[in-house]
Amino acid sequence: MNAAESLLQTALDAGVEVCFANPGTTEMPLVAALDRFRGVRAVLGLFEGVCTGAADGYGRMADRPAMTLLHLGPGFANGIANLHNARRARTPIVNVIGDHTTGHVRYDAPLTSDIESLARPVSGWVRTNTSPETLAADFAAAVAASRRPPGQVASLVVPVDCQWGPGTPPAPATAPTRGAANEERVQAAALRLREARRPALLLGGRALRAGALKEAARVAEVAGASLLSETFPARHERGAGLPNTTRLPYFPEQARELLATHDALVLVDARDPVAFFGYPETPSRLRPEAVPVVALCADSDDPADALALLADALDARKLPADASVLPPAPADGPIDPGSLGAILARAQPEGAVVMDEGATSGLAYGLSADAAPPHTVLSLTGGAIGQGLPVATGAAIACPDRKVIALQADGSGLYTVQALWTQARESLDVTTVICANRKYRILQVELARAGVAEPGPKAIGLTELTNPSIDWVSLGRGFGVPSARVETNRALAEELVAAMADPGPRLIEAVL
Amino acid sequence: MNAAESLLQTALDAGVEVCFANPGTTEMPLVAALDRFRGVRAVLGLFEGVCTGAADGYGRMADRPAMTLLHLGPGFANGIANLHNARRARTPIVNVIGDHTTGHVRYDAPLTSDIESLARPVSGWVRTNTSPETLAADFAAAVAASRRPPGQVASLVVPVDCQWGPGTPPAPATAPTRGAANEERVQAAALRLREARRPALLLGGRALRAGALKEAARVAEVAGASLLSETFPARHERGAGLPNTTRLPYFPEQARELLATHDALVLVDARDPVAFFGYPETPSRLRPEAVPVVALCADSDDPADALALLADALDARKLPADASVLPPAPADGPIDPGSLGAILARAQPEGAVVMDEGATSGLAYGLSADAAPPHTVLSLTGGAIGQGLPVATGAAIACPDRKVIALQADGSGLYTVQALWTQARESLDVTTVICANRKYRILQVELARAGVAEPGPKAIGLTELTNPSIDWVSLGRGFGVPSARVETNRALAEELVAAMADPGPRLIEAVL
Repeated sequence: MNAAESLLQTALDAGVEVCFANPGTTEMPLVAALDRFRGVRAVLGLFEGVCTGAADGYGRMADRPAMTLLHLGPGFANGIANLHNARRARTPIVNVIGDHTTGHVRYDAPLTSDIESLARPVSGWVRTNTSPETLAADFAAAVAASRRPPGQVASLVVPVDCQWGPGTPPAPATAPTRGAANEERVQAAALRLREARRPALLLGGRALRAGALKEAARVAEVAGASLLSETFPARHERGAGLPNTTRLPYFPEQARELLATHDALVLVDARDPVAFFGYPETPSRLRPEAVPVVALCADSDDPADALALLADALDARKLPADASVLPPAPADGPIDPGSLGAILARAQPEGAVVMDEGATSGLAYGLSADAAPPHTVLSLTGGAIGQGLPVATGAAIACPDRKVIALQADGSGLYTVQALWTQARESLDVTTVICANRKYRILQVELARAGVAEPGPKAIGLTELTNPSIDWVSLGRGFGVPSARVETNRALAEELVAAMADPGPRLIEAVL
Repeated sequence: MNAAESLLQTALDAGVEVCFANPGTTEMPLVAALDRFRGVRAVLGLFEGVCTGAADGYGRMADRPAMTLLHLGPGFANGIANLHNARRARTPIVNVIGDHTTGHVRYDAPLTSDIESLARPVSGWVRTNTSPETLAADFAAAVAASRRPPGQVASLVVPVDCQWGPGTPPAPATAPTRGAANEERVQAAALRLREARRPALLLGGRALRAGALKEAARVAEVAGASLLSETFPARHERGAGLPNTTRLPYFPEQARELLATHDALVLVDARDPVAFFGYPETPSRLRPEAVPVVALCADSDDPADALALLADALDARKLPADASVLPPAPADGPIDPGSLGAILARAQPEGAVVMDEGATSGLAYGLSADAAPPHTVLSLTGGAIGQGLPVATGAAIACPDRKVIALQADGSGLYTVQALWTQARESLDVTTVICANRKYRILQVELARAGVAEPGPKAIGLTELTNPSIDWVSLGRGFGVPSARVETNRALAEELVAAMADPGPRLIEAVL
């Protein structure tokens, strides 16, 4: 047994069963060792952003880490954007980054770089392994760090000679679990809710899982509180039978206006909300100072437990299941974001996992899907676009029995379009719906907000995806995914019904 | 005039005429300002690695910086891999990275990250601008830093409020130029060459331009020296009429064997060579310790000047032009790297710029092209794959009158395939030849070198690009580039002849 094998045995023992990889020469001992561990699945991404995004999607759905296997600083760097999103989602991920032999680094060979400087901004835990004897223990420490509540990205740099050196027994990876609720915080929240006239609960993180949502709805009913949810939650259980929440609006003036209608805010696994971007004359903090805030739980508490205690403290009753109805969907005509959302909400099967990186084209879907069959929505947590196709890929590997739907803005989808090939190779049950408005629509909105009423040809050129337009059907086929273009609501509905009935990857380019 | 406009006027005054951009909300003032400066061309990349690679290709060919315009930490991170290559190529580049308003950063909004930590590993100069009043001066300092010989990457972080704040007069950007040769180093090299029996010159950097090469050939003849060239030069002028060099082999044992045949090594704008990767029992330094080394010039000296002085010191004569002959090319039959190289060398026109990221499939081309019409070869300087298509894009913008050819390995090409769209939109005269061997061939070689004689299914799966195979013709068309697949030498030659005759982007998938 060499050290690479000790690392993989450690992984297997710790329940790390998937390795999203784009390896190179400095990872060959780990590549060779993978064949000796049937329990660790190796999934190739054609670009590292696919691997890190897939690890994020896997971790969000499996609630345990996948590992990535990446090639020195530049290979890791290609994965940073999606690790940034994973950091914001608090997803457990273990990155293993190969490096030159310990003796070779000082010669500053072409691929040498400061890997730790690149890794730190997206990792809660970073370490460089220095000997084969400590590799299993270092990897176990990385796994434990990734699982430390609420979850984080852990990055381990491993010189290639430390991989091929002598092995050791595997090391155990132990991490604390989420703690029970803090009674004092619960009582403080109960007091605040009793005193307030128009309170709101802002739910985020694990408070958007089914169990916590139901407790939150009990609290809201007895306290006369609104149920708000984070703008971009990592994972939100939604649909028929689950309480609806009002999503905090993206633009700060709208969010602030909404929050100003309340006289108390109870945060439940959510941060005191801040604007996505800063603007002149707009405060960064969205909550007006006059609105007092309390946090129901610390980062590592179990919010479902805290909400249940809070409901009991308020003598809340058990609630009947929510009875939303699906909005009507147009039978035909040109597709717009509203019709797309309504049609998708009607087509999606029970248990679907919807990765929503629809950007401006995806907003309407969220409203339409309140009454869709129970499903899970994953959103773009960190604003680093190019998350959707990779996260859908990883979610499909975590949940092979659930249909995964990527609601994908066209501009964002082009960042990591290589994910389609991994979906084809692994025969993943992912339907990608490209919202093809052929522009970075949000940037045109932001130009207008910045006072540019009539953008010039360069500003238009930098925000439109035309001349030429992208042919997504060709791109999908190029990567081996059956693909179709639709330009009417009728055709969209038909293609979606076919895709939902047929397991395996599909791409639908919906021209808006 | 706002500060964004002051920055762009400073750029224009300093000869920075191209902006490779993938902007977001925090760069909108600069986007709006671009329309007020006709002299600064705005080129959109659909992924930031396209922008940074294009800036590298532009800078290598234009010998002056382009600017990039990138979106906070994650957007910049997507460009790191190709900046890593640019750093190794010593290409002048100025990155402008937008950031949140100065007041918003402390709220840790979703897109907040430590941009400087990400920028430092690939930048020789990093600064965060803190006020609109200093923006023009900070940008001028970045331009000057990028041009400081031998050239480097300069990264300037600019909060969005500093862009929209009040402007100032533009600031002058002054940088030192390359210095004349150092007489003492020239005499030391002359002495070493006179004493040695089998000396070699190792040419790199600017010593591979036409003028320096001709002086180097004079030196080599009079000193009985071999002319070696770096394995991966940033820019190498080659072809009929120019002296040939022997490329230092990639694998360290071969390089070491070659260097061991010499009894002195004169470095000309090249580093004392080190192995690309470290291996067990192989020294990292390729030059045997018994072979003495002298450097003819410092990083910032002009190597052509130094070589001319050295030639005169040795009383070298003027040489007739080199008279290589093109190797024969097979008329038909299946394509292999050898036939591909020979056919391409015969097809390329005078003045072609060849971006060689052919990896294992590109090695034969280099040998075949010794006698091709005079041309320029750009190679993968830093080992961060995905350079080829972006660098070809930038080279075509720098040299609109020259045919650009991207000799591109398929695995590497997939990293930044979005560059094809920029080629289509800008109507660039780039012919991409995909070497479709459908594997990461070099990794299979490295697996064998690591002692894995019979790789298992996972190791094979992580090094092959099959199941499904990539359909490059579909990918090319999806991005708007006319594309064709060839499987015989005859078809390859025909497609190449057609592509060379027809300006504009083309893609040829050569199935190996």
